[in-house]
Amino acid sequence: MKAGLLIIGDEILSGKTVDTNSAYLGQKLTEAGFIVKKKLTVGDDKNEIKKAFRELMKDEDIKIILTTGGLGPTKDDLTKGAITEYLGLKLIYRDEIYEKIKERFEKRGLKCPDINRSQAYIPEGAKILENELGTAPGLIIEKEGKIVIMMPGVPKEMKNMFEKEGLTYLIQKLKPKKKIYSKILRTTGIPESEIQEKLRDFEGLAYLPKFTGVDIKVSAISEKELNEKVEKIKEILGNYIYGEDEQKLEEVIGKLLKERGLKIGVAESCTGGLIKDRITDVPGSSNYFMGGVVAYSNEMKMKVLGVREESLMKWGAVSEQVAIEMAEGVKKVADADIGLSTTGIAGPTGATPTKPVGLVYIGIATPDYSKAYKYIFSGDRRMIKEKAAQEALNILRLYLLSK
Amino acid sequence: MKAGLLIIGDEILSGKTVDTNSAYLGQKLTEAGFIVKKKLTVGDDKNEIKKAFRELMKDEDIKIILTTGGLGPTKDDLTKGAITEYLGLKLIYRDEIYEKIKERFEKRGLKCPDINRSQAYIPEGAKILENELGTAPGLIIEKEGKIVIMMPGVPKEMKNMFEKEGLTYLIQKLKPKKKIYSKILRTTGIPESEIQEKLRDFEGLAYLPKFTGVDIKVSAISEKELNEKVEKIKEILGNYIYGEDEQKLEEVIGKLLKERGLKIGVAESCTGGLIKDRITDVPGSSNYFMGGVVAYSNEMKMKVLGVREESLMKWGAVSEQVAIEMAEGVKKVADADIGLSTTGIAGPTGATPTKPVGLVYIGIATPDYSKAYKYIFSGDRRMIKEKAAQEALNILRLYLLSK
Repeated sequence: MKAGLLIIGDEILSGKTVDTNSAYLGQKLTEAGFIVKKKLTVGDDKNEIKKAFRELMKDEDIKIILTTGGLGPTKDDLTKGAITEYLGLKLIYRDEIYEKIKERFEKRGLKCPDINRSQAYIPEGAKILENELGTAPGLIIEKEGKIVIMMPGVPKEMKNMFEKEGLTYLIQKLKPKKKIYSKILRTTGIPESEIQEKLRDFEGLAYLPKFTGVDIKVSAISEKELNEKVEKIKEILGNYIYGEDEQKLEEVIGKLLKERGLKIGVAESCTGGLIKDRITDVPGSSNYFMGGVVAYSNEMKMKVLGVREESLMKWGAVSEQVAIEMAEGVKKVADADIGLSTTGIAGPTGATPTKPVGLVYIGIATPDYSKAYKYIFSGDRRMIKEKAAQEALNILRLYLLSK
Repeated sequence: MKAGLLIIGDEILSGKTVDTNSAYLGQKLTEAGFIVKKKLTVGDDKNEIKKAFRELMKDEDIKIILTTGGLGPTKDDLTKGAITEYLGLKLIYRDEIYEKIKERFEKRGLKCPDINRSQAYIPEGAKILENELGTAPGLIIEKEGKIVIMMPGVPKEMKNMFEKEGLTYLIQKLKPKKKIYSKILRTTGIPESEIQEKLRDFEGLAYLPKFTGVDIKVSAISEKELNEKVEKIKEILGNYIYGEDEQKLEEVIGKLLKERGLKIGVAESCTGGLIKDRITDVPGSSNYFMGGVVAYSNEMKMKVLGVREESLMKWGAVSEQVAIEMAEGVKKVADADIGLSTTGIAGPTGATPTKPVGLVYIGIATPDYSKAYKYIFSGDRRMIKEKAAQEALNILRLYLLSK
């Protein structure tokens, strides 16, 4: 069962925006057992949209047409008009949709601009896909034996509506047979080449390396085969695997903390708040995350975290000793069971002859012991922050697993 | 002068690989004064490649056709064969190309596989683009008034040959006159529809909305026209514009703080560290950012920031009063000139009958006054965090501008 994608937007053709929507749709469709046959990308030009849409409609192989972009309220949002015209459908004003859009604005204390009224005109017979994250609703039209789904171009909005409604609709209507089963195993702390070495006997693996870890996509033609493969790989990689599929390291940690009834505080220097930002992305994190401190200045390290002046003088702010004192300090000040800390040189400036850019100490203070680990990370400022935050969370995870 | 892109590869349609090549080509072409009219993406299927190539050849607007992918030595590399067949050209074996490929392998101590011999067959009359980073050479063919450039799909190889030879070739041959000058103006705090309303008399604008603000791309055919347009828009939008092109809000703030010799501390509750993470992404931020506190628990709000228990009891943690006390507290504890704070309900849980998800108070304590602002943001947990962080940084920016 084949699909065609129609991606709309000047900003994609001019390269201002990298189109990540179609890779996402390609993955989801492939996993569900559909095949993407082709993809057309055109600008915000009604005629071009119509021509491209016509091409997909005339392709006999294609049963599904997904479009992204061009559903907003402004004059360069032309998708709905172009496709409705091509299909010879009328646009009907639906007051309940305008009410919803108005509500979105009013909730934020804003007046809904007149221009947004255009979003409430819906092609006759179309099914509406609710947009929980924006104003433009998605649309499903069935015509000439094909299912057409129009979605907005903003990735979060599009993904949310496709995952919650669009894909289910396609699966229920078209019942694709050759489903491919796959699972992602997420690792951190081990390089891609070492994983490949360890897993060289496995077929059907894809490696998705990020600089905070490598995701391994395991595929199989049956659920049984998939589970067997996954189990074997888990045995081989052990604790290098922290989660599956969309699971984030901070979610895994949240679960472990809740299970063990432990609370955490975090003191950051070089990571600047990133660890806490990630921890608090998890709904309900206020149950185990008490808070913490970003201590950029030495004064704050002393005043709030109780780092000793002597340690700062003797070892410097970027040192094992200070990392330990920061972790112990935040454990105390946050009334937590565990304190986590980072201190390092994120660059590009700040290096000394003995302390290079990328040098980071990560401290952990637990009910059992206090300890610091030393790293030298490569990359630019942001990469060093992200690598250090990931490693700190992973140290916490490994500690929690040992309890 | 218009261009069409033909992107080839099963891995792109299935979403295994995100196609970043075409965004790169779009940018380079646009900067040079060409316009990308459309982009077709097909799989490793000779027939589909031919059909898509035909479509671009038949489009009278299109003078340039760029293809990426399908030039390797394996059986699913079909681009050269498909296009040569369509154009009715012969493939001629060129020994000097095979010698170069063999040399690449031998340099790495490897034997050149027989399979690579196919890469030395070149369409008659084609010009060769050297591939310094891989084996597949690029090809330029001129036919029927169009310039066709075939390039490999590996981004590094493609970019290297396009930048060094391909683009120069196009510019010399086609001499694009209408170079387009453009600048991005970055706004926050004003919805897209309101901007459009205010700028309805301007031509050549593109709007790139993100949920933390709208970027406006201003284009013109001369530098003078661009500058005039930009000035007029700046007059109309005033302080809604915080920066230009790639400039980030946290960079703008860093510059303002340095110029004014002011130091800042940040106390976060609902944004969980995100504001500090953004501030510390800027190299040299340790000069004006002292640090701060993430106070998730009420205890930390009282203990570290000096928020009064009375205020927490009377108004609740999410209140104007507590936001102000947090800002004042962090100003003091961080020895800063300005304290910035957030307290709110990021959701999905935590709402009460009078305090909905998305309710956020942002506090600022300055040498002149302390104040808090109330917002109700929409979206999921991450969106609420990002919107609140953006708004807090913007409040800081507006204060600094007033000094």
